[in-house]
Amino acid sequence: MRPIPDRGFAVSEFETRVNRVQAQMRSKKLDIILITTEPDVRYYTGFFTQFWQSPTRPWFVLLPLDGKPIAVIPEIGAAGMAGTWIEKIYTWPAPQPEDDGISLLQSVIEKLPHRFGRMGVPLGHESSLRMPAGDYQRLLSQLRPTEIIDVSLLLHQIRYIKSPTEIEKIHYICDLTSDAFEALPYTLKLGESERKNCHRMRIDLLQRGADHTPYLISGSGPGGYDSIIMGPTDRVLEDGDVLIIDTGTTFDGYFCDFDRNFAFGYADDELRRAYDVVYKSTEAGLVVAKPGATTSDIWAAMWHVLEKGGALSNNVGRMGHGLGIELTEWPSNTPYDNTPLEPGAVLTLEPGMEFALGKQMVHEENIVITEDGARLLSRRAPSELPIIS
Amino acid sequence: MRPIPDRGFAVSEFETRVNRVQAQMRSKKLDIILITTEPDVRYYTGFFTQFWQSPTRPWFVLLPLDGKPIAVIPEIGAAGMAGTWIEKIYTWPAPQPEDDGISLLQSVIEKLPHRFGRMGVPLGHESSLRMPAGDYQRLLSQLRPTEIIDVSLLLHQIRYIKSPTEIEKIHYICDLTSDAFEALPYTLKLGESERKNCHRMRIDLLQRGADHTPYLISGSGPGGYDSIIMGPTDRVLEDGDVLIIDTGTTFDGYFCDFDRNFAFGYADDELRRAYDVVYKSTEAGLVVAKPGATTSDIWAAMWHVLEKGGALSNNVGRMGHGLGIELTEWPSNTPYDNTPLEPGAVLTLEPGMEFALGKQMVHEENIVITEDGARLLSRRAPSELPIIS
Repeated sequence: MRPIPDRGFAVSEFETRVNRVQAQMRSKKLDIILITTEPDVRYYTGFFTQFWQSPTRPWFVLLPLDGKPIAVIPEIGAAGMAGTWIEKIYTWPAPQPEDDGISLLQSVIEKLPHRFGRMGVPLGHESSLRMPAGDYQRLLSQLRPTEIIDVSLLLHQIRYIKSPTEIEKIHYICDLTSDAFEALPYTLKLGESERKNCHRMRIDLLQRGADHTPYLISGSGPGGYDSIIMGPTDRVLEDGDVLIIDTGTTFDGYFCDFDRNFAFGYADDELRRAYDVVYKSTEAGLVVAKPGATTSDIWAAMWHVLEKGGALSNNVGRMGHGLGIELTEWPSNTPYDNTPLEPGAVLTLEPGMEFALGKQMVHEENIVITEDGARLLSRRAPSELPIIS
Repeated sequence: MRPIPDRGFAVSEFETRVNRVQAQMRSKKLDIILITTEPDVRYYTGFFTQFWQSPTRPWFVLLPLDGKPIAVIPEIGAAGMAGTWIEKIYTWPAPQPEDDGISLLQSVIEKLPHRFGRMGVPLGHESSLRMPAGDYQRLLSQLRPTEIIDVSLLLHQIRYIKSPTEIEKIHYICDLTSDAFEALPYTLKLGESERKNCHRMRIDLLQRGADHTPYLISGSGPGGYDSIIMGPTDRVLEDGDVLIIDTGTTFDGYFCDFDRNFAFGYADDELRRAYDVVYKSTEAGLVVAKPGATTSDIWAAMWHVLEKGGALSNNVGRMGHGLGIELTEWPSNTPYDNTPLEPGAVLTLEPGMEFALGKQMVHEENIVITEDGARLLSRRAPSELPIIS
């Protein structure tokens, strides 16, 4: 048995995160950053709850230019937030539709030092505000004049580089999920539905010690599948089918995100070749994924192999992405992304192609960038397509 | 074994939903409604995927004044959306940070009939826009002049009344989860952590046929717990502890949401009395929850019992809420909510009080309003606090 990583983080880790964001805030002349989403709030405060499932109440955290983050939250969360390293916690008795925390948030913002007159709010790519859009407009109209600056990229960049403790959690869940995938050939059942097969895997992941499986999808079809984001369905697996299962499973709030492919009964040459091309595309990605290169270099290396191998298209829109607190994080492996790879970045390599009309083949592995290049966090997929009989 | 409900919905059910919203649109003079979140998109299109876990790409659905909903979505979702009843599906190769669907969305909106020059967007309580806030501003600035109307309440009201098929799914998951809670006294272990005990329940729910448990929290402490939204933690359960477990578990994308309380070793009179008061508060709620009354009547009936029983406070902010596609839906049982109860409304009754400093007692049941009053969907909690020894 591999050792189970400690849960949570030392306060020093939160201090490091806040110091990093505050250094950026100084250079960008920002007094405050407002965050509203689960991953951002958890990253800076350590506030870790499943209660975000309830969309009723907004939660606000302010990152000031100096000092600890400040929580402006519903009263129901006071005891939980008091258990974190945060000290300044303002609450209101939510839900209160006529003023759900907005005037309180305004007053807390206005009491903070305003050196630059600029507040950061994530407004750009891969961000959203988890609060009523009308309340955001109301906040802006009530605040004394403040320039609003988009900090989505800034926040992505801070979370991009993982600490050793974060990497350990991701590695643990990748390893555990690799075990589960490697056991699948012994439990996958021909003649049963995608749904039943995936349900068994869900239980197996928990029994192996995973905390949670927010994402476990499958696609299947004779000789290929046409989607990698739907399912599992009640489609019954038959001889000649190809099945993909992709899972985002968590340990202590950190995700793995990778998939595996299986053929049922037999696989024809076209299918075996498609598997081989995509396998080799991942190999090409592993070689170039090192400091000095970019996400676009990864994309180019992988796409070169796929194109040579007869890819008709890639309709996923990218070939991998960041990974951590969320199933998918910034950046993306695309032709135009050009994010420099840095030690501590955790990424997926996800080459995929349409190899025949309506038939996709997608592989995925999870890696961390080190000074010496890519280190696999998931255990490498089999080099040949496994046949279940 | 109870019969497992069919999955999905007949097309006629989606037609009914769209007809209901379009009737409201006509009366409010709206040409289009823009929706962006998982529950709203699934409700009107049937598009059901776990892929919303990835925050990278926005998804847009337009509800026109006439005809079927229109999807404007990332290419990765094309095959999945084509499997629904939706016909008009526009895609773009997301992610594309410089224009992630916005100009496509604009062009689709502008091609639709503009009779009133008014577009509905959910901007109010219990809503958020799942798209970059900057992209929403960009969309508004690019659209030819259109009045934007907040439709959050309108959309809440449509989803408030559940169909028999929706109620059947909720009843099924409530019943299955009742089984799991009723089995807990035989598997809860003194001397083990909250986390281990809850992990076993997670597995048990899947083994009983639940699809997924997005929410399973616990709170515990000597003689009481101080939070109902955190955990499970590594706190080891000891003699004299009280434990609450609350779960939102799903079948076919529909939630139950209720809790149960357990004492370990013994329970003193104060604790037994608190349990009894909250139990009777639920009874009072069950009596008044019928057509003709409102959510505020439920609140008043339940609070009356709690106040008489010595409640120091209620820091949950409400005593129950809507339930369905989401763990918590509009409306709320609060003093000011005043939503009329109607047949088909599915609600939780969730009386809770602080009965001693830092000690809460919270109960929860799930009901559907019928012409004859409240019908329980969860099986009633034990009338006395169960003692685990």
